[in-house]
Amino acid sequence: MPLLRFDLLEGRTDLELQTLLDAAHEAVVEAFAVPARDRYQIVTEHKPGRMILQDTGLGFERSADAIVVQMFTSPRTPEMKQDFYRLLTRKLGERCGVAPEDVMVSCMTNAREDWSFGFGRAQFMTGEL
Amino acid sequence: MPLLRFDLLEGRTDLELQTLLDAAHEAVVEAFAVPARDRYQIVTEHKPGRMILQDTGLGFERSADAIVVQMFTSPRTPEMKQDFYRLLTRKLGERCGVAPEDVMVSCMTNAREDWSFGFGRAQFMTGEL
Amino acid sequence: MPLLRFDLLEGRTDLELQTLLDAAHEAVVEAFAVPARDRYQIVTEHKPGRMILQDTGLGFERSADAIVVQMFTSPRTPEMKQDFYRLLTRKLGERCGVAPEDVMVSCMTNAREDWSFGFGRAQFMTGEL
Repeated sequence: MPLLRFDLLEGRTDLELQTLLDAAHEAVVEAFAVPARDRYQIVTEHKPGRMILQDTGLGFERSADAIVVQMFTSPRTPEMKQDFYRLLTRKLGERCGVAPEDVMVSCMTNAREDWSFGFGRAQFMTGEL
Repeated sequence: MPLLRFDLLEGRTDLELQTLLDAAHEAVVEAFAVPARDRYQIVTEHKPGRMILQDTGLGFERSADAIVVQMFTSPRTPEMKQDFYRLLTRKLGERCGVAPEDVMVSCMTNAREDWSFGFGRAQFMTGEL
Repeated sequence: MPLLRFDLLEGRTDLELQTLLDAAHEAVVEAFAVPARDRYQIVTEHKPGRMILQDTGLGFERSADAIVVQMFTSPRTPEMKQDFYRLLTRKLGERCGVAPEDVMVSCMTNAREDWSFGFGRAQFMTGEL
């Protein structure tokens, strides 16, 4: 936790995807100070035409490299989230050549009882985490 | 924002998908009075057997054309959401021939700090939006 | 409602997927006491490398059979959710041979006005449900 969904167009190699996920996870660990193995990532690759991402009038266009990162997480402060956006965008740029206008993020918040990491238990409730 | 996920079975053409997304976006713009370029849509097409959508006992069956629209958004009133359901269902019917029983919608709400539209910034927090 | 998303790696047969969805739905019905036809399930199968699921330091490894179940629901008590985790994990083990460490669940909560099951109506608001 957090759980991150990545939606992007087809075309990246396995290695490029791996690098992208590694970079994103670094941003998670730095922004939220979570353990290194607090890593839950799911990628869905889409055919052209299956993602339409505009700009709410901010005045830019996205390329075919655009990525949507949807994060599901227990509560994090607005400051931590903003750190995450900055770190994620910087790392995806440096490590994967993703342009800053091609990184979109949306967060959704849940609670401690909303997670079971395995074994049918809610580890935040049992005291295991 | 909002961000909409569309899940449906394989079989629509690219043009049919485009029309469907255009119609859905019209409903978003009308129901929530957002800018025309406040458009964030992701489609995932599934093989048969990967979507099971029943009726909670309401008394109808869905066809293979059924669509699930999951909307992630900052707060909207119940009235606006109900307008959206009506508009979306009507437009998908008129423009795409989708039957009213084949349109299912679920909304999830987040906050202003939960969105970064690009550049590593939270544009609702920076004053850009 | 609830709406469940299942993310897993490619490789299960159609029959195996059907059994898995049936078992998961039994857990939903038992844990939340919902009607049998309150069934909304979406499966997305992924290629290797598209799901990275670790353990937050709990001390286990997952296999290629690992499943992420993401549940979107109106409010349920922590006790009901914990029942669901237990039942789901047990049933997926018994019926599908999924190991307990391979079942991860995350829940997200919304409200009554957030659902339209068809016909452009919010059936929890209209009194139909």
